[in-house]
Amino acid sequence: MNIKTNRAIGVFDSGIGGLTVVRSLMERLPFENIIYFGDTARVPYGVKSVETINRYAAEITEFLIKKDVKLLIVACNTMAAVAHQTIVDLSPVPVLEVIDASARIAVQKTKSKSIGVIGTPATINSNAYARAIHLLDKEAKIFSQACPLLVPLVEEGWFDHPATKLIAQEYLKPVIAEQVDTLVLGCTHYPLLKPLMQDIMGKSVNLIDSADAMADIAADLINQQKIGNKKSSPPEYTFYVSDLPYRFQTIGERFLGRTLGRVELISL
Amino acid sequence: MNIKTNRAIGVFDSGIGGLTVVRSLMERLPFENIIYFGDTARVPYGVKSVETINRYAAEITEFLIKKDVKLLIVACNTMAAVAHQTIVDLSPVPVLEVIDASARIAVQKTKSKSIGVIGTPATINSNAYARAIHLLDKEAKIFSQACPLLVPLVEEGWFDHPATKLIAQEYLKPVIAEQVDTLVLGCTHYPLLKPLMQDIMGKSVNLIDSADAMADIAADLINQQKIGNKKSSPPEYTFYVSDLPYRFQTIGERFLGRTLGRVELISL
Repeated sequence: MNIKTNRAIGVFDSGIGGLTVVRSLMERLPFENIIYFGDTARVPYGVKSVETINRYAAEITEFLIKKDVKLLIVACNTMAAVAHQTIVDLSPVPVLEVIDASARIAVQKTKSKSIGVIGTPATINSNAYARAIHLLDKEAKIFSQACPLLVPLVEEGWFDHPATKLIAQEYLKPVIAEQVDTLVLGCTHYPLLKPLMQDIMGKSVNLIDSADAMADIAADLINQQKIGNKKSSPPEYTFYVSDLPYRFQTIGERFLGRTLGRVELISL
Repeated sequence: MNIKTNRAIGVFDSGIGGLTVVRSLMERLPFENIIYFGDTARVPYGVKSVETINRYAAEITEFLIKKDVKLLIVACNTMAAVAHQTIVDLSPVPVLEVIDASARIAVQKTKSKSIGVIGTPATINSNAYARAIHLLDKEAKIFSQACPLLVPLVEEGWFDHPATKLIAQEYLKPVIAEQVDTLVLGCTHYPLLKPLMQDIMGKSVNLIDSADAMADIAADLINQQKIGNKKSSPPEYTFYVSDLPYRFQTIGERFLGRTLGRVELISL
């Protein structure tokens, strides 16, 4: 592939959740330029219909392709679950997505082949994790649970509030009953709940953080295709959003783990 | 005003919350035709910027005006708080909105003139309730509290779940400390939490349900302007939404308190 290696990686999400993926990419691939798009005007996608999610995903893909990215990363589990084909059909560059990435790492880690998956209603109802895991290991048993309240709780910053614990315990009860040895945190908001989840699930359960999984898989592809940025100058990070809500800066920086640089508002 | 009285009342909201207003209107004005628009593709508005909320409110107003409504009711507290002027400027027919309606009923009910208001972050940060109440009574003292998690909890149907109680108690603690005698439920989702709220606030506190308040004020205007429907045939109810999420029917019917009739999907 004849590609300029200093072209950016394009990462997109329905909102700010994908910033956890950007954070993992920054740590794993410190010389790569990154362009992020968060559809903050239309978030959340997890409760929308398949048709609407596909329409929005197509708009974002076209926007990032025009920015001349060398790789597209779908950080949003909901879009990965229901709009992956739409994105691939529109993209001239490779497309990676969080569900496939997390499925691969989960299959590597599990010993009992009993895997739990938690996510938004749209992600879980799409059955995309079960499909992705079964493509890699037919024998795996998957126990899924939709957790619609966890995203708003994370956006409130209630990472270890008693109410969050009560709600997470209720959601996880049926998954724990199945004695899974691996739990996929199938939403980019959930890495911020990792300590709470580990506490509820017990120390022996592997937690698969979809942001870290995505960064690992992206690093593999970049090495294989030899498209890593040759320049070791400080990379450029650009953040586009479709709305700038009053809490954006606070929450965004919490997700990213550092100060947000340039944030540009655009309307698709 | 020369107006065909069988023209419908147009009611709109950022999503399905406004169906609680439709329910109160159906009970209070049983012969009126109603056209509802819920912007389910772009819900929630409560966390969006003022510019975006105004743009969306203008689109919806233009849509309903084309449907030849005789009266516009802004059922969404967030739109009423930040986009009322935009809507009035575009509308050739009277515009009523939930904040003014709730403020009027709250001022009628309070004795101590100490009033609590709860709502989404956008509604509370706009200070619209405090302004509306002060226009009616300069001496009233207002204690506001944003409650971002209550909408997702209601949409989950967790009306009396221990987690909902824990969260509501935390939000209401500073309001209770101010010894208010009246609490405005400043969001159309909250009527479904009324029993829980009454339990937390105590029996002596007046709860102002914005849906009932809106129906009372609409009935007053219709009587004053003599634009009530003269025909006593069964009214027509039409529901337009911008997306049909998988939970729409279930949640919508819970909000409306009856079966939803015709639901049409339209893209603005």
